[in-house]
Amino acid sequence: MGDYLEEIIDKVKQMDFKDSIDFSLKFKNIVIFGMGGSGIAGKIFQDLFTKFPVISIDSYEFPQYIDENTLFISISYSGNTEETIRATDMAIKKGAKVWAITSGGELSKMVKNVILIPKGLQPRSSIGYLLNPLLLGSGLADDDSLKEAKENIEKLNREHEEMKIIADEIYYGNKIPAIFGFPPYKYVAYRLKTQFNENSKILAYWSYFPELNHNDTMPLKSTYRKELFYFIALTYPNINEIYLKRLKITSEICDFNYKEVRAMGESLASQIYTSIHQGDLISYYLAKRRGVDPRDVNIIEELKRRLS
Amino acid sequence: MGDYLEEIIDKVKQMDFKDSIDFSLKFKNIVIFGMGGSGIAGKIFQDLFTKFPVISIDSYEFPQYIDENTLFISISYSGNTEETIRATDMAIKKGAKVWAITSGGELSKMVKNVILIPKGLQPRSSIGYLLNPLLLGSGLADDDSLKEAKENIEKLNREHEEMKIIADEIYYGNKIPAIFGFPPYKYVAYRLKTQFNENSKILAYWSYFPELNHNDTMPLKSTYRKELFYFIALTYPNINEIYLKRLKITSEICDFNYKEVRAMGESLASQIYTSIHQGDLISYYLAKRRGVDPRDVNIIEELKRRLS
Repeated sequence: MGDYLEEIIDKVKQMDFKDSIDFSLKFKNIVIFGMGGSGIAGKIFQDLFTKFPVISIDSYEFPQYIDENTLFISISYSGNTEETIRATDMAIKKGAKVWAITSGGELSKMVKNVILIPKGLQPRSSIGYLLNPLLLGSGLADDDSLKEAKENIEKLNREHEEMKIIADEIYYGNKIPAIFGFPPYKYVAYRLKTQFNENSKILAYWSYFPELNHNDTMPLKSTYRKELFYFIALTYPNINEIYLKRLKITSEICDFNYKEVRAMGESLASQIYTSIHQGDLISYYLAKRRGVDPRDVNIIEELKRRLS
Repeated sequence: MGDYLEEIIDKVKQMDFKDSIDFSLKFKNIVIFGMGGSGIAGKIFQDLFTKFPVISIDSYEFPQYIDENTLFISISYSGNTEETIRATDMAIKKGAKVWAITSGGELSKMVKNVILIPKGLQPRSSIGYLLNPLLLGSGLADDDSLKEAKENIEKLNREHEEMKIIADEIYYGNKIPAIFGFPPYKYVAYRLKTQFNENSKILAYWSYFPELNHNDTMPLKSTYRKELFYFIALTYPNINEIYLKRLKITSEICDFNYKEVRAMGESLASQIYTSIHQGDLISYYLAKRRGVDPRDVNIIEELKRRLS
């Protein structure tokens, strides 16, 4: 398959990555810090694990409540993300229980409890390495569900004509993707938005049910330029019926078509990873159609240089 | 000024609303439940108050950790929002310390501690009634800062030519608004997105610094259809210099223009409310230009009927 696709299908291997964060420590809340392709793991996790409050942070603002009762998980693929280093330093000073998930860099030196993951990928391609330590440590995934995830990712690798068709329809229609997510996986929709940004180099729009029924629904019928958008609904097996009903009625009332892309499998791990994988494939094929290099993020790199 | 503008400038009066939630209760975390125009108060507050973990929720998923150590604040202008009633019922059963902010409805009957607010507005027009009880109760606002907010809102009411110009530029350029927010006020940018949706009946895009530098930045230079977007940056006085530097460098590297709309005043309350007010005015004038009724949300109402 060649080129960047190798990074995308690396997910298969990542399903065997079993290092995990120790959730048996005593804590009252969990803060996960991470930016962009690294931070997405924390964003996704925050809606899944609800035994404790989980707050994902991606800014310079550092919450006062972080202290020795906080499990602070710092995620940076490179280990050198400026925002993440700064926040981790503060968390250590506040006495939080700090863990890091990283492939090295400054972060691997400053934190004692490090989940060390393989180098050589784009952060956004390492989602399994970033997310498995959270899912396994918290009990949201286990060997069986990761096996199911792996099998379904392999199945997708063999057969994903639908993802190519979606990429084609976006490309030839000169469309802006608008992605609808559904709790508890709404940040998988956000992930797809960011993959369109970084892989395909196009702006994309995301939103989620049922919240969007309180605002986006209003313009969907009559907005100017509605024809520009290509609507994708990221559903999953055993989704709450109320969400499907909302999707159906919304599209009827507002008179728009959407493409339903359905995650695979019964387990949370399989659903999360196949849904992510479907989006990764769509954004990859769109990059190819557009003649841009999906790996290239030179503008983000230039920005980092000019900021430092 | 007439019509819906009366609702928008009702904010002046709302700055005198001093009922507040009792934050002296014993709790370990705060959960704020609310959808759409009601929920926005919780979303904004969650990034401002950091003495305790604050989690804003807008879905059917109900976190396990909610118990007697949770201050559960339920916000629904009508008091009859389906999602909110359902979640509040569960919070009561779990023994949480439940408060409600509402103008009546079912919610005012099921909860003992109710902040009762005036009827007759659209939820999105009652932002002061919804947010003041949180800001005052938590100590993030006081009489002085609400006085500053009020004076600056009045100043804006007298003079806001800039907001009309922005609405005109969006309208005559047939643009899609893309709003950039900055922590800790990023949800004010989200609020403006939803105001474009409900008032102006157009889709809009929002994102925030520094997170957007890790994804949106990539396509900003070379996305197809970039010319469609009208970029608005919602800044504020005493903003962290690093944010302005990021904004400037991003626009230089990516070669796009943006309109900076700067909040007014020194206090958090004044900045939040003037920034919201500026956006409300822009979305109002855009509705007028488009010849749509900014008050009308008939599609959302129809959806609710068909769901029930």
